[in-house]
Amino acid sequence: MSEPPHLADLRALVGQPGSRGRIPTPAAVLDLDAFERNVAKMQARADAARLALRPHAKSHKCAALARIQLDAGAVGVCCAKLAEAEALAAAGIRRILVTSPIVGEAPARRAARLAAELEDFRIVLDHVDGPAELGSAAAAPIGVLIDVDVGLGRTGVSNVEQAIEVARAIAAQPNLKLIGVQGYGGHWQHMEGANARASAVAGGMARLSAVVSALRDAGHTIGVVTGGGTGSFEADAAQGVLNEVQPGSYAFMDRQYRDALKADPDGAFEQALAIAATVISTNHPRWVTVDAGLKAFATDAGPPIPLGLDGAEYGFFGDEHGRLTRPGGRDLARGDRIDFVPPHVDPTLDRYEVIHLVRGDVLVDVARIEARGASQ
Amino acid sequence: MSEPPHLADLRALVGQPGSRGRIPTPAAVLDLDAFERNVAKMQARADAARLALRPHAKSHKCAALARIQLDAGAVGVCCAKLAEAEALAAAGIRRILVTSPIVGEAPARRAARLAAELEDFRIVLDHVDGPAELGSAAAAPIGVLIDVDVGLGRTGVSNVEQAIEVARAIAAQPNLKLIGVQGYGGHWQHMEGANARASAVAGGMARLSAVVSALRDAGHTIGVVTGGGTGSFEADAAQGVLNEVQPGSYAFMDRQYRDALKADPDGAFEQALAIAATVISTNHPRWVTVDAGLKAFATDAGPPIPLGLDGAEYGFFGDEHGRLTRPGGRDLARGDRIDFVPPHVDPTLDRYEVIHLVRGDVLVDVARIEARGASQ
Repeated sequence: MSEPPHLADLRALVGQPGSRGRIPTPAAVLDLDAFERNVAKMQARADAARLALRPHAKSHKCAALARIQLDAGAVGVCCAKLAEAEALAAAGIRRILVTSPIVGEAPARRAARLAAELEDFRIVLDHVDGPAELGSAAAAPIGVLIDVDVGLGRTGVSNVEQAIEVARAIAAQPNLKLIGVQGYGGHWQHMEGANARASAVAGGMARLSAVVSALRDAGHTIGVVTGGGTGSFEADAAQGVLNEVQPGSYAFMDRQYRDALKADPDGAFEQALAIAATVISTNHPRWVTVDAGLKAFATDAGPPIPLGLDGAEYGFFGDEHGRLTRPGGRDLARGDRIDFVPPHVDPTLDRYEVIHLVRGDVLVDVARIEARGASQ
Repeated sequence: MSEPPHLADLRALVGQPGSRGRIPTPAAVLDLDAFERNVAKMQARADAARLALRPHAKSHKCAALARIQLDAGAVGVCCAKLAEAEALAAAGIRRILVTSPIVGEAPARRAARLAAELEDFRIVLDHVDGPAELGSAAAAPIGVLIDVDVGLGRTGVSNVEQAIEVARAIAAQPNLKLIGVQGYGGHWQHMEGANARASAVAGGMARLSAVVSALRDAGHTIGVVTGGGTGSFEADAAQGVLNEVQPGSYAFMDRQYRDALKADPDGAFEQALAIAATVISTNHPRWVTVDAGLKAFATDAGPPIPLGLDGAEYGFFGDEHGRLTRPGGRDLARGDRIDFVPPHVDPTLDRYEVIHLVRGDVLVDVARIEARGASQ
């Protein structure tokens, strides 16, 4: 696909001094130095804990950033949905685990097509009918993991008996190969305090461990035990049940993780992503209006935090605008640019066509978010 | 731009019996018959009230749907931002009003380019410095409206004095032409009850009317008086201050407008848009999991409402999933498809690459949302 004209205009800014300040707003702006440090730090932690690192691409949805993670040592990436995997596969990513179970013939055919195209494609299932659907579509072997509910109640088999049942159904399909299990505790990730997270993780990992033992006792080979996120990394490493971890947000950070992880060792990631906005109206005595609203930020985790403006508070002000109270310390003028910490990074980045990569005040590259909105 | 392969796959479904049920989910699905009835009804109301209808394209962001509105009699469309206007202009829409003020040289150049390309381009300003910026960039006359704050406090001049000041600054620019004023009361639109809305609208319209009179007394020609939305239509028509209205959501409707407008004459629009989802996991005893979560619905206005499932309640369950309680009346099976009324239509549609147009159970067309995410 050729690029639309506005992206060509944007690329013309690349490399120019001060170009960061000329990016049209609202915009997702990534401090590439901080991103690279976050990526290196998580890789070093995973290496030290002898955990394979498979970053979750649902955070960035972007092949260029996935490549930086892979080059740093990641074994592959996770994708939440088939469409996310398809978009990243089309952009050249070759080792993908799809972390949500799929249902029905059409998704099975899409998964089989991905398995045929990629170097290493894996997918989870959590129901006894899943293997027959996927096996019927498969023309060549597909690696399958059994998704195990570790307490979130979202997806996954609920108990050992269901796991054994799904494992038998996988074994009955000549073109499926059971390669492991997944247990993801999304509900642990934002718990405040390392102790609270560690205790919750321990309970869930006991459930996962029981499933792994039962499957091995029944004669199945369980190589991969995958799960975990940015918040649970320390606890996951300490528990020793997982041998592969799937964090995503660590590379960017957000308000939610910053609050949950402060004062923890896990919290030592830098805020690498900002949403840049511009003051577009200043007539009101008590606030100014910026050009970033409901379409610019995910709204599920409270308001974004303005950077460098102590005391200023952001409020959503319709689809396209936000209200920023005038702080005591600094007057805000028409045309001023404000950077915000996003409240929740994954669905925030899903709003944007591109991520602007900056070093200092220079725009150094523009990365397409190929899997934006690819939830199917 | 050529189309990505997944869209070609989707177009292959068009026209097939039962194809609505094979659209990959989550998906924005538009009942085209209901949409057309909504469009015709609003046009008839506007015609009867002698109001020009300029639907707000921030609701759909889609040229194909804008064309249906224009063909039905709309005088043009509104766009919230320059990027939205650029995307729709590139897709062939020729008469656009940008309803947010712009700031600075680069946006002024973009506005001037649009004015040069389009048959009829208009934009609002709300600050005395705006006209010089825009006038310097303009190579040919640009129609400008003064944005007036009618009580929302988001954008717009605050009083008559500021309006006169901006009007003088416009008059000083040879390539700008003052053609009218805008007064939009976003805060009225979702007020419950026609009386509450009518009373709020009356107060705001008095402010707008005072500005119009003062500008005319000062010798300015004020032709267009634009504003209004789906919720305020009846009150706007009754007040008689506006001569052009900008509703957007009426064409689709959502949970928010349904609740605000029920039992009102304004409420007589049909729910034309649904978000379709699929049950992908059924292991939990108290709920099932569907494949539509934080990325599939705007979250600023509560949960979406499942259709045809009395007693079932949706809860957000992470970026990519939702939890649907098992209702008494109907069991929910793996693979079942559920339609949801979106809580807030504009930012919900902003999540999607395409709108699926259906008549009955047949997918009849796939419309690109060209201005998705175009908030710049």
